[in-house]
Amino acid sequence: MSTTMEHVRNGVDTGTLFATLDAVKAQPELGIFQFRVANRWIDGSHNRSTIKDFYAAGGEDTSRAEAFDLDAGEPAILIGNDTGPNPAELLLHALAACLTTSLVYVAAARGVRLTKVESKLEGYMDVRGALGLSDEVRNGFDQIRVCFDVEGDASPETLQELVERAKARSAVFDMVTNGVEVYVGTAA
Amino acid sequence: MSTTMEHVRNGVDTGTLFATLDAVKAQPELGIFQFRVANRWIDGSHNRSTIKDFYAAGGEDTSRAEAFDLDAGEPAILIGNDTGPNPAELLLHALAACLTTSLVYVAAARGVRLTKVESKLEGYMDVRGALGLSDEVRNGFDQIRVCFDVEGDASPETLQELVERAKARSAVFDMVTNGVEVYVGTAA
Repeated sequence: MSTTMEHVRNGVDTGTLFATLDAVKAQPELGIFQFRVANRWIDGSHNRSTIKDFYAAGGEDTSRAEAFDLDAGEPAILIGNDTGPNPAELLLHALAACLTTSLVYVAAARGVRLTKVESKLEGYMDVRGALGLSDEVRNGFDQIRVCFDVEGDASPETLQELVERAKARSAVFDMVTNGVEVYVGTAA
Repeated sequence: MSTTMEHVRNGVDTGTLFATLDAVKAQPELGIFQFRVANRWIDGSHNRSTIKDFYAAGGEDTSRAEAFDLDAGEPAILIGNDTGPNPAELLLHALAACLTTSLVYVAAARGVRLTKVESKLEGYMDVRGALGLSDEVRNGFDQIRVCFDVEGDASPETLQELVERAKARSAVFDMVTNGVEVYVGTAA
């Protein structure tokens, strides 16, 4: 029991973390993952995604007991009735979550005990792009600003370095800053 | 009442939609929006975003009565315990939601009544990038595939054109395919 407790830092079982790293290092094909979402339109700006199954480490992962159902919507000014956060806000949530988890895992691996990780994100958008009123402004955010507030048993320099490592390792930060090829097709 | 009903197509009040388009066309500065997320780490891969306030159409929008609280997590194989979808899945949800709402609004504006909009999204990732085990693979998805199933009172060609217009107008599709500048700082 005490051995297990020593392994757990920031709620992360570092024994399992290092074992996972070793396993993927030894068998790189275990690193191939596929994540999935099924979305269904409900009405107006209200739609819902169901998230459950995924492929990981050489096979279908069936460890999740329940699916996650997530709603989306728009506020009144964008002709919705707040059935959920809007898609741009959901992207900010994905980015915040990924940077935070990356930071927490890096801290656990490096022996830093965190007491606080908070972040505020802002995205600036000229909606004339998405509304089709101007070809001179883009549809999405012009820029996103993230401000972290991190506390733990390490120097300010070490905590700052954790933020830098989180940026360097975050999957969503990579996708949002560098872009991804997206193929959109229709069912036959 | 009957007038109002005629204005509503696919759950979208097209009278309000066209009035909004006219207002932003007349006063382009009304198009400046800012969306925000506040995220707080809870434990391990568990963190939570709170989403409520935003700036829109020349001022702070206070129309939302309640905040949205959204959890994130990781499955067991990524050293979590399923406290929420993982960040990569959340990005797919944001993308699905945005493409779907864009499609539904375009259809409403063009007079197409939809009966079904469903989509399946898949993202492929070699987690050796995010785990820091290889500099040759990226952290995020190599590619994302989206498959739409759309039905309504229009020809297959028209329905296909709606999917193309959704791609051309979606804020999140723009951001995920083209990337956004993200500035990450820390609180003083």
